[in-house]
Amino acid sequence: MQDNHINAITRATKSILTSHLGVEVSMNEPVVIKDTSVPAKAISVILGVNGQLEGQIICSMEADTAKSIIGTMMGGMTIEAIDDMGWSAIQEFGNWIAGTTATELSKEACTIDVTPPVINEGSSKFRSAETFVSLPLESTIGAINVHVSIKQER
Amino acid sequence: MQDNHINAITRATKSILTSHLGVEVSMNEPVVIKDTSVPAKAISVILGVNGQLEGQIICSMEADTAKSIIGTMMGGMTIEAIDDMGWSAIQEFGNWIAGTTATELSKEACTIDVTPPVINEGSSKFRSAETFVSLPLESTIGAINVHVSIKQER
Repeated sequence: MQDNHINAITRATKSILTSHLGVEVSMNEPVVIKDTSVPAKAISVILGVNGQLEGQIICSMEADTAKSIIGTMMGGMTIEAIDDMGWSAIQEFGNWIAGTTATELSKEACTIDVTPPVINEGSSKFRSAETFVSLPLESTIGAINVHVSIKQER
Repeated sequence: MQDNHINAITRATKSILTSHLGVEVSMNEPVVIKDTSVPAKAISVILGVNGQLEGQIICSMEADTAKSIIGTMMGGMTIEAIDDMGWSAIQEFGNWIAGTTATELSKEACTIDVTPPVINEGSSKFRSAETFVSLPLESTIGAINVHVSIKQER
């Protein structure tokens, strides 16, 4: 995985949180996961990538962070439990990241398609043939780990 | 989701199990999931779809079924626990389904790209904005549920 691609994905995720949600974000160094698996937090948004890059971008967060994202998207509501409208909002959040990631990568002369998001809810692990690079984002609404597992197209 | 697309995905999965693994497969009627989520079994292989269709194909199975698949792929070994080589085999199984699904859909004049597989391990649920159609496959090595959530491209 090339550094400029990782940086483009990082810019995309940070810009969604900052410009769309008005949340302050800082990022620690990307971590190359030595193990063949990454642990998921309670809620993961999975985006499939095809085109010049192939693989997955997985945004993983605790339920409280997801509730804060939903609440912010709904204009500052407090969310007690995630209902169907809440899940819709998280899917839309995934769509934003997908769109912005495609745009940022196109600036690096890299054309990709991103699938609509699918959400995984529950305690689980992800495994890929490709090494995961994990981007640890810290924000005022909690931590979001972005696990990236992509390779150049075949 | 069109019936001919569902049928193509069904043919692809059945043909992998039958021709590559020599397993007898029968299928119950596809189920349209009314709920916005589907429960995952212990191991799910997630394939992202882009192109004229967009979404996910998720093959979900219990660990024993995964072990049987791995054992059969390795020439009839008995698998006690899934190690890195075993996870590789399950990823390859996912690649087979991806490739065959793309081929079967191309026969329906539908061009898609499928991502490399990512595996989700653990008890969890999947949620998508698109309705899931679930294909319940029964085989001599156990049940595999294929959850399909795809829509025509935007």
